[in-house]
Amino acid sequence: MTDQPGQAWPAEQTVAIVGVGLIGGSIARALKWRRAASTVIGVGRDAARLEEPRKKGWLDRITTRMEDAAREADLIVFCTPVDRIVNGVREAAASCRSGTLLTDAGSVKGPICAALEGTLPAGVEFVGAHPLAGSEKKGCEFAHPELFVERVCVVTPCDTTSNGARSRVTVFWQMLGMRVIEMTPAAHDRALAETSHLPHLIAATLAATLSPENRELAATGFRDTTRIAVGDPELWTAILLSNADEVLRSLAKFEQSAIQFRRALEARDSQRLQDLLTAAKLNRGEIQ
Amino acid sequence: MTDQPGQAWPAEQTVAIVGVGLIGGSIARALKWRRAASTVIGVGRDAARLEEPRKKGWLDRITTRMEDAAREADLIVFCTPVDRIVNGVREAAASCRSGTLLTDAGSVKGPICAALEGTLPAGVEFVGAHPLAGSEKKGCEFAHPELFVERVCVVTPCDTTSNGARSRVTVFWQMLGMRVIEMTPAAHDRALAETSHLPHLIAATLAATLSPENRELAATGFRDTTRIAVGDPELWTAILLSNADEVLRSLAKFEQSAIQFRRALEARDSQRLQDLLTAAKLNRGEIQ
Repeated sequence: MTDQPGQAWPAEQTVAIVGVGLIGGSIARALKWRRAASTVIGVGRDAARLEEPRKKGWLDRITTRMEDAAREADLIVFCTPVDRIVNGVREAAASCRSGTLLTDAGSVKGPICAALEGTLPAGVEFVGAHPLAGSEKKGCEFAHPELFVERVCVVTPCDTTSNGARSRVTVFWQMLGMRVIEMTPAAHDRALAETSHLPHLIAATLAATLSPENRELAATGFRDTTRIAVGDPELWTAILLSNADEVLRSLAKFEQSAIQFRRALEARDSQRLQDLLTAAKLNRGEIQ
Repeated sequence: MTDQPGQAWPAEQTVAIVGVGLIGGSIARALKWRRAASTVIGVGRDAARLEEPRKKGWLDRITTRMEDAAREADLIVFCTPVDRIVNGVREAAASCRSGTLLTDAGSVKGPICAALEGTLPAGVEFVGAHPLAGSEKKGCEFAHPELFVERVCVVTPCDTTSNGARSRVTVFWQMLGMRVIEMTPAAHDRALAETSHLPHLIAATLAATLSPENRELAATGFRDTTRIAVGDPELWTAILLSNADEVLRSLAKFEQSAIQFRRALEARDSQRLQDLLTAAKLNRGEIQ
């Protein structure tokens, strides 16, 4: 956890949010709720969809033209699907004033940080971030200003990231109520493959295994275990493919574990099965 | 769904509950709340643990002697772990009056019904049941009188089950607020392997896969997907082993599905992966 005592978030800033869905909308609401921005600009491809959050007062202005927002912004937060972040950052950076800071909320960090490192105009910096908040729900109608409170945000500086940019990005996510952890982009992707991307793949696999005629007999256990499988397939395809190597590595680890359970069951080995279930229970521990 | 219009539950009955944990305790509370029994007897191996629900007024009497409860009861409900149900029923049946009805709440039905069919004294009948209600929590301190409301209960009569016993058991579970479905014990076990036992095994496997140093990065997705893995290892060992053939069959089906996801990832096949995720999402559907 990065602690930055004495660092305050300057409220007189223009913040542009690119992609106003669950995460982007929640950031906008949090900025308003905390009076942490003088102006919040919503950027999206579909102006009609930006109208609703603007009418609600979450956004001060909306635009479909990245350069218009980029010229004015002190901070730009990219909340689009992971496969659109690199191009969005490049487009915005071309119009930014020097000193503008760029960050994102993408679930994968390695390819994004690698593609952008050392490529932006002088004085414009991108520092990757991944707020571990959200849900299987999609769309800014589910946005909530407290979505980030007491959640972890992973910030992934690169070798070339300046201390100033690193600390401003940290303070931004902390200001939203998050506990910031710094990791390298690669370490982030390795860890999140295990804690997020693999669970999504497994939940989807389990959901796919259900025979439709048995749906009536699926109770709370099945429901919870497969809840995240209702997440948006397009978003998740991009996430899984952006981190395919690490997801496959985690899947191999899962398969090794599954083999142990299968062997214990095949052998009707009660003690071994109970040991495996106990170890799994202890390993999971308490998760908030 | 078995609908039994005109069938009412006679409130002037003595009901014995064997095993007063989450399910047994909830049945006791529901009987009191609905004024659906004149006397509720709690039967357990540890008298001290029965004191608390008795003091709370959920149980009228408590005993560690099965025969004492069995002699008086009109209905006996077995809520012990699945591997203790058959012996419990045999012990109780030896002391029952003719006309006493026995049912259970075990998560597996085939081995229990097969072991008991045709073995009980004349006039004493056992009809298996599985109320699909509960949680990963254990113990009667979590008991709730509305635990069963609007949940499904599978009732599994055998070839020798009388119509009278079948209908009394159905009315009993309906009286608790449940929607009763009749299935053969084998069909129940096949379906529940897929909707409950396999998800438990997979949740445990996923929990076992987590590297402890990544626990801090496990958010709501991981938490929900592995929630049931904190269930009691001893209880679940008995359930999984009692239904091992069907669980292994479901696991093989899961593995086939996992291979498809893995191949799509290995091939970086975006369209195929998105199709698989979409099919999984649709197959899961909405689960209450």
